[in-house]
Amino acid sequence: MDRPPTTFSQQPMTDTETKITQAQSAALDLANLDEKTRNDALHAIADAIEAHSEEILEANAADVEEAEKLLEAGEYTQAFVDRLKLSESKLESIAEMVRSVAGQEDPLGKTLEARRLDEGLELYKLSVPIGVLGTVFESRPDALVQIAALSLKSGNAVILKGGSEAAESNRVLYEIICEAAQEVPEGWAQLIEAREDVATLLERDDAVDLLMPRGSSAFVEYVQDNTSIPVLGHTEGVCHVYVDADADLSMAEDVAFDAKVQYPAVCNAVETLLVHESVAEEFLPAMADRYREAGVELRGDERAREIAEMDAATDEDWTTEYGDLVLAVKVVDSLEAAIRHVNAHGSKHTESILTETAEHAEKFMRGVDAASVFHNASTRFADGYRFGLGAEVGISTGKTHARGPVGLDGLTTYKYHLEGDGQLVATYSGEGARPYLHEDFDGEWAPGRLSEE
Amino acid sequence: MDRPPTTFSQQPMTDTETKITQAQSAALDLANLDEKTRNDALHAIADAIEAHSEEILEANAADVEEAEKLLEAGEYTQAFVDRLKLSESKLESIAEMVRSVAGQEDPLGKTLEARRLDEGLELYKLSVPIGVLGTVFESRPDALVQIAALSLKSGNAVILKGGSEAAESNRVLYEIICEAAQEVPEGWAQLIEAREDVATLLERDDAVDLLMPRGSSAFVEYVQDNTSIPVLGHTEGVCHVYVDADADLSMAEDVAFDAKVQYPAVCNAVETLLVHESVAEEFLPAMADRYREAGVELRGDERAREIAEMDAATDEDWTTEYGDLVLAVKVVDSLEAAIRHVNAHGSKHTESILTETAEHAEKFMRGVDAASVFHNASTRFADGYRFGLGAEVGISTGKTHARGPVGLDGLTTYKYHLEGDGQLVATYSGEGARPYLHEDFDGEWAPGRLSEE
Repeated sequence: MDRPPTTFSQQPMTDTETKITQAQSAALDLANLDEKTRNDALHAIADAIEAHSEEILEANAADVEEAEKLLEAGEYTQAFVDRLKLSESKLESIAEMVRSVAGQEDPLGKTLEARRLDEGLELYKLSVPIGVLGTVFESRPDALVQIAALSLKSGNAVILKGGSEAAESNRVLYEIICEAAQEVPEGWAQLIEAREDVATLLERDDAVDLLMPRGSSAFVEYVQDNTSIPVLGHTEGVCHVYVDADADLSMAEDVAFDAKVQYPAVCNAVETLLVHESVAEEFLPAMADRYREAGVELRGDERAREIAEMDAATDEDWTTEYGDLVLAVKVVDSLEAAIRHVNAHGSKHTESILTETAEHAEKFMRGVDAASVFHNASTRFADGYRFGLGAEVGISTGKTHARGPVGLDGLTTYKYHLEGDGQLVATYSGEGARPYLHEDFDGEWAPGRLSEE
Repeated sequence: MDRPPTTFSQQPMTDTETKITQAQSAALDLANLDEKTRNDALHAIADAIEAHSEEILEANAADVEEAEKLLEAGEYTQAFVDRLKLSESKLESIAEMVRSVAGQEDPLGKTLEARRLDEGLELYKLSVPIGVLGTVFESRPDALVQIAALSLKSGNAVILKGGSEAAESNRVLYEIICEAAQEVPEGWAQLIEAREDVATLLERDDAVDLLMPRGSSAFVEYVQDNTSIPVLGHTEGVCHVYVDADADLSMAEDVAFDAKVQYPAVCNAVETLLVHESVAEEFLPAMADRYREAGVELRGDERAREIAEMDAATDEDWTTEYGDLVLAVKVVDSLEAAIRHVNAHGSKHTESILTETAEHAEKFMRGVDAASVFHNASTRFADGYRFGLGAEVGISTGKTHARGPVGLDGLTTYKYHLEGDGQLVATYSGEGARPYLHEDFDGEWAPGRLSEE
């Protein structure tokens, strides 16, 4: 008697369309898979990765061989090829990562709120999976395993689209994962491979609930501009460190150094150093020397270049994510000018003020619009693991759903469960309406048993 | 020394573009306006609406006069013209609504989490406004006041685009609101009026953080398809009531009646009634009589029509939001078939099961993918006020950010504040790395004072 789910098109489905529809169907079952089954599957995946290491490394060698040809042709960098390469020890750490995801607290089935609307009418807000995640990610083959593990832990079906450079590695890893996760509803993870498949993915707002693109800012913006599916992503990390008039300058030097040099390739590294004019002459020369010794190229505004030797910054420098040992430097008149500069040029990622004056910290932290605002700490702390969120999904520079470092909670939504015994809205409406109670209480949802019984 | 914020275009800004940029700038100040100033402004707005009632009613009369011409020409319905019409008592209830928004708990500045990453390194997750809301709403002039009030309460700047039918009323209300809210950063609310302005609004992803369209499903879908800004909206309300084999049939009759008849024009009214085959013969004839007496037109599948007299349902009926006294009726083989029907045809809004068996309720509530799932209660309870969320922003059928009835919390996001005393990531990395503590604690953020001092 029942019709199959409506599909978005009357034409025959392509292979990719079928995969997405299968994920949509699997998501409904996966949503209610108990915690033990999900965790057991994660452990089985970790074990299978270790057991099949030879097969994985063989496929990976084929990818690396192809990549090396393109390296010779000058199309790839050595760093790119290195990131692609797997090894026995790398596989062990990938397996460990999957086990650590299994060990995380369950993000599902939490009672977020419980409220008695009236005697015998109880509302529960429960955490549930989002549904189907559409992910597009970079060439590192560990990305596929990580994304699949986080999706499974959070009860979401997932469409996986990796880079073509890692095609062989991804295919083998995907097969191993699906085979190991036997108790998980079939079709929960789907691998798509061709570039055209991405366009198909972006069109499926009937089936895909959240897109998580990883890659260049340009790619994330392309995704945002070409889909009506919500996107959880991160465009740019143009982070600032502001050295206030009342900074402890020795602390400021250490923090500004750590924020740039400790790992410059990542999004939470500082890209622009702002220095209050009253401390610039004392602070900048020594700071510039220390940066220079570490190989950091400085690009300053006029006032900074009067104080220390550096190249001239152009307008473009204030909005550039270098991801490298390059730093823009600007001297500002005031705390307010620093806040204005950050709000005009920053990417709402992470901003840090160095000051010993609480009022200055407060003004900066309240005034700056960013996911993470720090006082006397390196911008590099903006990270899911360091924040104690456990496994990190990524860092979002959007302002809705999930912001900043995103943990497993960012892969959940909620569902309202209302337990009644036949209540009608008519009873609570119009003349002589029965009033609502609206009384919060501690309690867990238990179907069919109202809490006071 | 400081440059003005980068704008999205090098061409001269149009009037609408300037307004949006002004809202963006006001949002930064508005974000930190204290609770008392926001509430005082809301009370001033309520008072001003009462004080200027004559002016408002005069402007409204002009709108109504225009609308009546179009009513005569057959372009508008009487109901449409009635919704547009204000009165002295309607204005009083609008003013009361604004005061009740003022009386709501402050959604801002809540400490959602506090975690000690290490001694002297404390992370706080605080609720903050989203920034700039872009709203497009229907012709009822009270919508403008309600949206402006909710935005102000939640510290968000707002772009207001009302229907052209209410242009005069909206203009006067907007001016009264701006004049009354004198302590609020200028430019926090912006009125845009032309249809072309909507296209400009949808393009401004550099300035607008969340779009909240209200209106037809087609319009909400148009917005989703033509912007990269996140959209909080609600497409359709195709809600179901399922009468299980183990339902209390007298309760089921009352609930199914309330869900359709108590107010059929709204999104949480039921559109399809599903009945288990084992109770269909006992339940449907009386139910059909009761519906017919209330003027409900029934459209059934083959099995339903064998039991009670009704028109034949077409495929389209299973996915139609009638918003009227029309109801589709289907007899299903099993609980599982009911769940499958809802997941294939529903709009993820609100679904209700009538049953005395807890296991059946659990299976249905877990298995159905919808924002609200009810057991033995009318779908009409899916509403922000009834749920105890206070002021309602709307109902979202999306799965991310905010789902179901959305209160003021749905207009907030969060910001991470990290308080340190000079910590470097280098200390916590590599060989001999200092471990993290990651210890949750109860505490409020206080800038510059670490909690253990």
